Amino acid sequence: MKCFKCDSQAILRIKRHKATLCETHLVEHLQNQMIKAIKKFKMLPPNEKVIVAISGGKDSLALWDMLLDRGYKADAFYIDLGIDEYSKTSMEKAQSFAEKVSGNLYTISLPKLYNTGIKEISRNNPRSACSACGLIKRYIMNIFAKYGNYHAVATGHNLDDEASSLLGNTLRWQTGYLSRQSPSMPSNNGLAKKIKPLCRLAEKETAAYCITKNIDYILEECPMAQGASSFDYKEVLNNLELKSPGTKDQFYLDFLRTAQPYFKSNKQDITLVKCPTCGEPTSQDRDCSFCRQMKSNQLDPLKVKEEISGFFK
Amino acid sequence: MKCFKCDSQAILRIKRHKATLCETHLVEHLQNQMIKAIKKFKMLPPNEKVIVAISGGKDSLALWDMLLDRGYKADAFYIDLGIDEYSKTSMEKAQSFAEKVSGNLYTISLPKLYNTGIKEISRNNPRSACSACGLIKRYIMNIFAKYGNYHAVATGHNLDDEASSLLGNTLRWQTGYLSRQSPSMPSNNGLAKKIKPLCRLAEKETAAYCITKNIDYILEECPMAQGASSFDYKEVLNNLELKSPGTKDQFYLDFLRTAQPYFKSNKQDITLVKCPTCGEPTSQDRDCSFCRQMKSNQLDPLKVKEEISGFFK
Repeated sequence: MKCFKCDSQAILRIKRHKATLCETHLVEHLQNQMIKAIKKFKMLPPNEKVIVAISGGKDSLALWDMLLDRGYKADAFYIDLGIDEYSKTSMEKAQSFAEKVSGNLYTISLPKLYNTGIKEISRNNPRSACSACGLIKRYIMNIFAKYGNYHAVATGHNLDDEASSLLGNTLRWQTGYLSRQSPSMPSNNGLAKKIKPLCRLAEKETAAYCITKNIDYILEECPMAQGASSFDYKEVLNNLELKSPGTKDQFYLDFLRTAQPYFKSNKQDITLVKCPTCGEPTSQDRDCSFCRQMKSNQLDPLKVKEEISGFFK
Repeated sequence: MKCFKCDSQAILRIKRHKATLCETHLVEHLQNQMIKAIKKFKMLPPNEKVIVAISGGKDSLALWDMLLDRGYKADAFYIDLGIDEYSKTSMEKAQSFAEKVSGNLYTISLPKLYNTGIKEISRNNPRSACSACGLIKRYIMNIFAKYGNYHAVATGHNLDDEASSLLGNTLRWQTGYLSRQSPSMPSNNGLAKKIKPLCRLAEKETAAYCITKNIDYILEECPMAQGASSFDYKEVLNNLELKSPGTKDQFYLDFLRTAQPYFKSNKQDITLVKCPTCGEPTSQDRDCSFCRQMKSNQLDPLKVKEEISGFFK
């Protein structure tokens, strides 16, 4: 199988793009897909600074790599959640990648700040560990964007992530989420702009990218996410994709193009006020979710802001 | 496992209804679900005549049985499509069920009228045999409703059928279909009202109904439908249902309740005109799809109307 752009041996076939790609053109093609998403969804003007939330996994490392390769001013941050071996390994991957690309990586560590990890902090969350973890991560993203003066926070969500999240929202017809789900969430009243430049790339494509570019990433999924329904939705979509290539792409991109406008009428601008404890935006007239989560564990929520603001002094 | 309504042995558990049911209460429960759908979706006033499109399969026979049991004036029609053994067997099942319940069954036979079957008639359909078959069936439904003065045509579509059809429309975000898909399509300009009273019942529940009530039905699926994507969608939904009972129900019923209203703004009333050949309603300013399909095979489309009108003279 030859590359569709040159005579070299192809290493990956992307059926929905009708493309067979050699190493060189795979890298080019996937980066072009990222640029296409950045432009289409107005994610990032070329001269603006962006900060990438990296986990040590393939998607976020590939994203940081692509942004740097394409000349974006991209820094990164890593959150050590204190999940035993998983956090140890993923932090090593994140840090050695940063060294390799001479990138600016900030690390914030829950064990160092609080002498405890996400497992303990999330124990009293009425929903799930993933829910508590998500709210802590989103909080930290906003603080980084604010003190570091970044135009946006970029996450490594890929097409599989976005399509499976869409499927979950669709199976329950959560019209609020359906009106908001976007690869480019504008900044709003002190909340940072959040962008997903890899939303056009499938999971196996970011993996192929890392292998091709010799990016060493953590293979394991987070041990705390076991049994998450997103895995079921991904499996469903992968099976349908196998039978009908392009299903995932069509489902997600046609949603944004064709169906989401119908739900926009449901979009209510949420009024944000300042959290009485940390001063960050919150939709409720009391402590924000982050402060409540930390306080419920007798932890000082302000330590996170102090730590991050210190990076940029 | 005991019935949740009496002390008898339960034979089926319906997790999403939190019900374990003995034979007697299974029949009652499923019929109640049908009545609930009929009322909720304003399908059929108690004194109106209805005609059931029966195929010899479990769903349509269960539907006819339930309607008769609950006192509806329900006749039925069967279309012999001339699909070899499959049609032979399904017609026998339909006819012996009609005899058993002393029901009024009309049979219309493509081989008798045209000396050929759906396989040959659909050969030149640019889409698929299922597409040609569907248009012929819909045409025949309308003619029966018209000449027999029925308030509505009832079909045996169950929850699995409706949810899988919704999933197909959703994966492609076909907003036109999404605005129209309904268990109760009102009559419109000469097109009959079409109702799906079993839309709250899962496939295995109509099967259990038939077994309990000793209704002999054809087990085989139509041989011409092999590989249809609706089977993939059903499998997907069944897998999700296993992991999270109620998924199918929620997906379909919440769609109708919550999400469909958003798409209604897309609903365009289609202007119908009379087909120049048969006089039946069509959206195009030329022969209707049925007449074109028949004429493209040098078959006289008017024979169907003559045959059916003859039944009611």
